[in-house]
Amino acid sequence: MPKTLGVIGLGSMGMGAACSALRNGVTTWGCDPRPEARQAFADAGGQAVASAAELAVHCEVVLVLVLNAAQTEEVLFGEQGIATRLAAGSVVVCSATVDPALPPVWEQRLAEHGLWLIDGPVSGGAKKAAAGEMTVMASGRAEGFAAAADMLQAFAGKVYRLGDQAGIGSTVKMVNQHLAGVHIAAACEAMALGMRAGADPAQLYEVICNSAGMSWMFENRVPHILEGDYRPLSTVNIFVKDLGIVLDAAHNLKFPLPLAAAAHQLYLATAAMGLGGADDSSVVKYYAALAGLDLPVAAQEKP
Amino acid sequence: MPKTLGVIGLGSMGMGAACSALRNGVTTWGCDPRPEARQAFADAGGQAVASAAELAVHCEVVLVLVLNAAQTEEVLFGEQGIATRLAAGSVVVCSATVDPALPPVWEQRLAEHGLWLIDGPVSGGAKKAAAGEMTVMASGRAEGFAAAADMLQAFAGKVYRLGDQAGIGSTVKMVNQHLAGVHIAAACEAMALGMRAGADPAQLYEVICNSAGMSWMFENRVPHILEGDYRPLSTVNIFVKDLGIVLDAAHNLKFPLPLAAAAHQLYLATAAMGLGGADDSSVVKYYAALAGLDLPVAAQEKP
Repeated sequence: MPKTLGVIGLGSMGMGAACSALRNGVTTWGCDPRPEARQAFADAGGQAVASAAELAVHCEVVLVLVLNAAQTEEVLFGEQGIATRLAAGSVVVCSATVDPALPPVWEQRLAEHGLWLIDGPVSGGAKKAAAGEMTVMASGRAEGFAAAADMLQAFAGKVYRLGDQAGIGSTVKMVNQHLAGVHIAAACEAMALGMRAGADPAQLYEVICNSAGMSWMFENRVPHILEGDYRPLSTVNIFVKDLGIVLDAAHNLKFPLPLAAAAHQLYLATAAMGLGGADDSSVVKYYAALAGLDLPVAAQEKP
Repeated sequence: MPKTLGVIGLGSMGMGAACSALRNGVTTWGCDPRPEARQAFADAGGQAVASAAELAVHCEVVLVLVLNAAQTEEVLFGEQGIATRLAAGSVVVCSATVDPALPPVWEQRLAEHGLWLIDGPVSGGAKKAAAGEMTVMASGRAEGFAAAADMLQAFAGKVYRLGDQAGIGSTVKMVNQHLAGVHIAAACEAMALGMRAGADPAQLYEVICNSAGMSWMFENRVPHILEGDYRPLSTVNIFVKDLGIVLDAAHNLKFPLPLAAAAHQLYLATAAMGLGGADDSSVVKYYAALAGLDLPVAAQEKP
């Protein structure tokens, strides 16, 4: 009998995953507290509900794509939580970026209800999620993967199987966020230095993209600076949060991260300037403000 | 009449450039204090001499590929310097990584002898240099480029023309070295964190290379860690030097670089461990030493 998928959290990533599953012919329930998100999902052909408890009784595989660990724990084990409501043998895929120490605890608690956990943080951004091409960095017991494999295929472009221990998926995601966060801040610092020293920012971008200083984030984010367009695709606050998770996890491991700590301070400084909700490339404005640097201005803002 | 090229400094980059020019049919003189370098260049069909003064009288375009600013100034203006010996209208291409404030000074002093300066730092590593494919980040007066264009083509794969002001080539190189230095240190910090948290390093490498945390340096250097092979392709000391140049230049501009400063400390710490002459991926050993982490070991060293 074909399985039913539940997606809890219809933000940009969750909505993308849920609609991709629908397009692949999977019966999909979606849950979100925001009526407009439920309406959009219903319009796309999904079953939209406001309560995780209601969703749980219809689904055998549930993707939990909420903001953080606290929201994940509420969804799993809160008053309306799914742990007590899913049928035994069901699979929960937890995809928020969290401290890798947490998924093993969740796995244990879910096992008491006969449920499998897949520790499966995602990446790729809203655009890839909408196209059914998100990447899942997944670890967990083979039984969980066997039960959920076709559902994962229905919304993800690539599923990395990173072993059978919950926590490894989140560890790999943590390492990715460490690098992504440092690279965006480094791109902003280096571009600001180059502009302060008199280089043309568009030339800098072209040369660096073809040189050893290149990073995926440099290539992706510096165009925002060149175009003066800081409308948020991913916000400063996301890295305030994610580098915070990386630093807390390392703190618990007694592991020093001087670079990640320095980068985190730069996101905090930018958020302190009131730019927490702006695009993460806004870190360049911290340098510009300190050094009195004129950044490129969007075409429509030019005098 | 075809021009003659001079290459001062037959290290891995200079030797690669000089031999590439020879292969392209250019009469090329090479200068190096080390007899074995001169012998190798003579064996390749070049004219090898020990003194820059001797080289200068035969050449119209001279590529200065020495270690740093002090060596460059000695070559240009020292007792055996080329500035007083080159024919008027000759072009000097200065390619060491230096503070961008210096090339404009050199340009002025060379102009007093009727000589053109191209501020042209190079990148690409020894392998690309040997293949005639190094990249030149070049700025300087149009007259200099007009006189040297065919010679640049003879040893470089790509010449970025970055305007007519000496100093901009070095600025772009400085920005590249900033990012390259931060990215290697970040790769080491992040890989060490992931291993400490229990992830498999080869899996980490595969996932990150296909994710937003990717950098050119991550892709290029992490295999050294996975293979336990720290034989130097580019040393820790190179980034002790190059990030030092970046920080000094920014200091003179009164521009703060918290990330580059943190990365520089990591190279210094690794050099302090006695690893200055090892591959720059040895920064991972700093984290491993602090955290008692076992790194992958080269096959031939395994018990």
